[in-house]
Amino acid sequence: MEKEFDEMPLAERQIDSSKVFEGRLLHVYKDNIVLPNGHKSTREYIKHVGAVAVVAIDDQNRIAVEHQFRYPFHKELLEIPAGKLDSADEDPLEAAKRELREETGIVAGSYEYLGAFYPTCAYSDEVIHLYWAKDLSYGNRELDEDESINVEMIDFDAFVDMVLSGKVQDGKTQAAVLQVWTRMHK
Amino acid sequence: MEKEFDEMPLAERQIDSSKVFEGRLLHVYKDNIVLPNGHKSTREYIKHVGAVAVVAIDDQNRIAVEHQFRYPFHKELLEIPAGKLDSADEDPLEAAKRELREETGIVAGSYEYLGAFYPTCAYSDEVIHLYWAKDLSYGNRELDEDESINVEMIDFDAFVDMVLSGKVQDGKTQAAVLQVWTRMHK
Repeated sequence: MEKEFDEMPLAERQIDSSKVFEGRLLHVYKDNIVLPNGHKSTREYIKHVGAVAVVAIDDQNRIAVEHQFRYPFHKELLEIPAGKLDSADEDPLEAAKRELREETGIVAGSYEYLGAFYPTCAYSDEVIHLYWAKDLSYGNRELDEDESINVEMIDFDAFVDMVLSGKVQDGKTQAAVLQVWTRMHK
Repeated sequence: MEKEFDEMPLAERQIDSSKVFEGRLLHVYKDNIVLPNGHKSTREYIKHVGAVAVVAIDDQNRIAVEHQFRYPFHKELLEIPAGKLDSADEDPLEAAKRELREETGIVAGSYEYLGAFYPTCAYSDEVIHLYWAKDLSYGNRELDEDESINVEMIDFDAFVDMVLSGKVQDGKTQAAVLQVWTRMHK
């Protein structure tokens, strides 16, 4: 069955931009724009410094998983270690090493880059750089005073089953874990 | 190698909540909270009505993919068909059928639920319900006047390779496509 789809121009053009909310975490902008069809419209979005997330798997095929309370959902979620860049020009690999060490105490002998993950392309410019950390050794955690995270090592194949059965809702965790499983099996 | 991790309490408690920005799209809140260690802090987050996204694969093993301009990144992204719920109490499956039909013209004979995807659990309560649509037939698209989307049918295994090689950055698309590939091969 073949089907031809019409093509249309897609690009949107900025007229002006203004900051509408400046918080401790969130920086919200509202731009006036011109749509591809010439109509005027607005776009509201968040500017984000960028982040990293790490699939860390040890020599017993166990993945490091965090239990963290996520306020927008008012519940604990299961996630891979992750965190924001210190600044927009920080090397994401250095941020990945730092976040993994601080949150879990784990130091990895090697890192494989899994690519960029855009969590919310409709209303945030956040990019999360995904990594696969290997050759793990265990040290001590260094959580910030106000940071609360519990760490658990879970069999990687069992965790993939947890993703597929709906027990892991966090988006970056789903994508990064399934990227690793697919790379292992494709 | 075994490693014991200390456990700590995780839950955060709301003191009060206020809306700090009410836009056309974004609804931003700032809450005062109590951390598990008793310290006071704030949480800034977006309230979102919820959304759906659909992996639609036809009888030639081709996936329906959209080219859409995403303003926060000022570029076109490759994404699976997706859209917001009309209201918080809309049945997500009905929304999935509507968005797939309006954006691509495709009607599916059956849907498999892939679970909930939280794109941005740190600062948004958005839930994207992921579906796998099968037994496709093609009709006409019904884009909104101000909506610009180009549709392409791509071999599913080639598209999985595009995800793995970094050509598909959209988060929901990565997770949903790899969920389907993993379900096909695990």
